Amino acid sequence: MNGRFISFEGPDGAGKTTQLSLLSRYLDDRDILHHCTREPGGTPGAEAIRNLIFDSRHNLVPRAELLLFAAARAQHVEERIMPLLEKGIWVLCDRFTLSTLVYQGYGRGLDRELIGQLNAIATCGLAPHMQLVLDVEAEAGQNRVQQRLENNNSFDALSEDFHRRVVAGFREVASHDAHCRLIDGSRNPEQVHGSIVAALHEGGLLDG
Amino acid sequence: MNGRFISFEGPDGAGKTTQLSLLSRYLDDRDILHHCTREPGGTPGAEAIRNLIFDSRHNLVPRAELLLFAAARAQHVEERIMPLLEKGIWVLCDRFTLSTLVYQGYGRGLDRELIGQLNAIATCGLAPHMQLVLDVEAEAGQNRVQQRLENNNSFDALSEDFHRRVVAGFREVASHDAHCRLIDGSRNPEQVHGSIVAALHEGGLLDG
Repeated sequence: MNGRFISFEGPDGAGKTTQLSLLSRYLDDRDILHHCTREPGGTPGAEAIRNLIFDSRHNLVPRAELLLFAAARAQHVEERIMPLLEKGIWVLCDRFTLSTLVYQGYGRGLDRELIGQLNAIATCGLAPHMQLVLDVEAEAGQNRVQQRLENNNSFDALSEDFHRRVVAGFREVASHDAHCRLIDGSRNPEQVHGSIVAALHEGGLLDG
Repeated sequence: MNGRFISFEGPDGAGKTTQLSLLSRYLDDRDILHHCTREPGGTPGAEAIRNLIFDSRHNLVPRAELLLFAAARAQHVEERIMPLLEKGIWVLCDRFTLSTLVYQGYGRGLDRELIGQLNAIATCGLAPHMQLVLDVEAEAGQNRVQQRLENNNSFDALSEDFHRRVVAGFREVASHDAHCRLIDGSRNPEQVHGSIVAALHEGGLLDG
């Protein structure tokens, strides 16, 4: 039987990485084999593409940036995600296609149909069994991001208006997609984790 | 008036770089402002993508490689080629969309419709006024490549069969595209240059 594929989506500072770790521990406790990864990245080639995307010296135009996200995703899906799922191993991924749709479409203003087309090309049609969308207000998310000193990237410097469009975009997309669950990320991490485990049970991805 | 956009296409070792230089000198002699560039590359960001494509350590899957070519092209077109053409400056480009179609489609066996779709996305519909396709037999091209010691890339190590498919692909594509001119590249450089200048006159790109 194939593994389950779960993506963690939402604005920066929504708590995706923390929640991914908590779910990983939960799966460990139940002896469910899984692999934690992230996008853009997840393989040496895709991580090299990630470094290029976040290097502001390159002055990438939005259309080139979008194609680089797609390139990194194509590499990640074919080299890593698909083979793991075929072996029955779960994949927990920090960001996937939904983040591209929201950041590039709602944030940067690129054509959403074009983004959908490129997502389909990059994934060969592979979609997560569930997309967990962590929801926080733009200000709260940005405050959390500013508290982390390390690991800033070129998206962090964008305008408040950009971050508000991203938050609104995630809410809109999540409300239209049956594989999305919008999770209130403003609560404490254990409460958020409880909602995620409940969502996986309700969605039939976890038994009992 | 907009500048003219000319691409040099064909298998490795066909003499593209030499012919681009000879045409550049010809245009200099006639005070025609022009810019010489190449793909993948042509801007700092696109050259960084080029380095990634040709770094065999990344083990890129063909679909990721194709998307990286498209990303480099999007950056090159928007940041460099379009602004130059709008200023009336000619652009001479060593490889463009046709090389992607032939190398990835005929060479690697990727879906040609997909390649056409990505070429259109990357260029926003910009096409060269003329595509000069230099034609040499696969063996002759590969012999010339092996005589250059520097500048080998990951395509050079591909099989003889790959290079034969590429040569045949350029011939087939050139015969179906009104903006292509198939030029016999097996002659000496001055003869080839003469054919190129004649093609530009016949195509109405050069006067008198």
